[in-house]
Amino acid sequence: MAPAPASPEQRARELGLEIPDYNDPPYGGRYGQIKAFHRTGNLVMLSGITPEDRDGTRTHPGRLGDDLTIEQGYEAARKAAVNTLGMIRLALGSLDEVAGLARVLCFIVATPDFDKYHEVGNGFTELFLDVFGPEAGIAGRADVGVMGLSNRNCLELWVTLESRTAPDAE
Amino acid sequence: MAPAPASPEQRARELGLEIPDYNDPPYGGRYGQIKAFHRTGNLVMLSGITPEDRDGTRTHPGRLGDDLTIEQGYEAARKAAVNTLGMIRLALGSLDEVAGLARVLCFIVATPDFDKYHEVGNGFTELFLDVFGPEAGIAGRADVGVMGLSNRNCLELWVTLESRTAPDAE
Amino acid sequence: MAPAPASPEQRARELGLEIPDYNDPPYGGRYGQIKAFHRTGNLVMLSGITPEDRDGTRTHPGRLGDDLTIEQGYEAARKAAVNTLGMIRLALGSLDEVAGLARVLCFIVATPDFDKYHEVGNGFTELFLDVFGPEAGIAGRADVGVMGLSNRNCLELWVTLESRTAPDAE
Repeated sequence: MAPAPASPEQRARELGLEIPDYNDPPYGGRYGQIKAFHRTGNLVMLSGITPEDRDGTRTHPGRLGDDLTIEQGYEAARKAAVNTLGMIRLALGSLDEVAGLARVLCFIVATPDFDKYHEVGNGFTELFLDVFGPEAGIAGRADVGVMGLSNRNCLELWVTLESRTAPDAE
Repeated sequence: MAPAPASPEQRARELGLEIPDYNDPPYGGRYGQIKAFHRTGNLVMLSGITPEDRDGTRTHPGRLGDDLTIEQGYEAARKAAVNTLGMIRLALGSLDEVAGLARVLCFIVATPDFDKYHEVGNGFTELFLDVFGPEAGIAGRADVGVMGLSNRNCLELWVTLESRTAPDAE
Repeated sequence: MAPAPASPEQRARELGLEIPDYNDPPYGGRYGQIKAFHRTGNLVMLSGITPEDRDGTRTHPGRLGDDLTIEQGYEAARKAAVNTLGMIRLALGSLDEVAGLARVLCFIVATPDFDKYHEVGNGFTELFLDVFGPEAGIAGRADVGVMGLSNRNCLELWVTLESRTAPDAE
């Protein structure tokens, strides 16, 4: 008999991911007047997520095509994806409560000549595939090259997902 | 006994906000082939909102970091937030029908060196806090620096919120 | 007695639109780790859609205000709108299952001086009006000028719509 597939929480542990805890210190403590997420029915809409450490230090400042290589952009997207896992835990209590990713907009700061946005955004998608598998871990996506982001962040994610249960039903 | 907290409509009156009436003249009259909002269930998705007078005059054309200061950008975001109140009244009949803001994308036109997008977007958030309070007035947010917007607008909002009731239940 | 109005599928046929079939070859075959759409309740969220042929050839690479005229941008938006029809068929089986468009973000690559984004985005809206009529075919919209998109695409759509039925009810 084949072993039962690992749950997303199990896979996150096996991957050794350092998922930030946005309960302690509370997310709101640093971001002030921005909330982390909104739930209505089974829909979960996360606030913008950047590649940064839990204390707010930007890990990948700069622009693709200039300060940052594609590989560094990929790592930035993966870092922001790991932070997304922390946001999901904050919203739902556990990664195992995710029914499926819906969509992600990936805003990427770059020079006018850069055009490998897709290779940067894959850093998000491949982390989510590792954790949630191909059923729940694949999202619709658009990778959009932009002029800039706050504090010279190179990337920001705008993630929408579906939860297994609605708040009212819990 | 403490007085009952003011409703959003009361607070908007107390603040003396000049909220545009998109019923008269009708929103569709100027914007032609764009609709103001879409409702499905308790979800309310507003069309893009810019800082402009009711007659369509852009109040803050230009780019942050060049034509416009951060203070002017903040005022532009606040102006667009006041217009958002008019859009909410058009969609729901009253500000008091808002259960809570969900998310807002704030697209801001800027020069390559600008990086204070967050301070611009706060103009939206602080107006909504004044009107709806910390429970319903805080949204998830991302402030995204872009190349340009129609007619040299400096800013455009993309707002999603939740209503107290669904259209079918009304 | 007036004839019954044509259904969206009938109108699409009458217009002679070449709507791509994303079932054959499957959408996932080319786009790998991106899914075409997500449905939850009556909400349908499509992945990013660009102006390209079914084999992935970009039909309108470049930047508005430089490589491309407004007319070419309009055609690019119309091309992406036709591709959107294919995505809707993939998601819902038929265009006749659309209750209404909700919103569309139209990301457009342009030079710093360009400011006619609205005239480009109209290429999307006018195709949808032709197919779905003014009731279901008008969306909320924002046209956003950006730095770049993958593979030098000039435009990408981010479309949200409402279906007549929810997956559970089918």
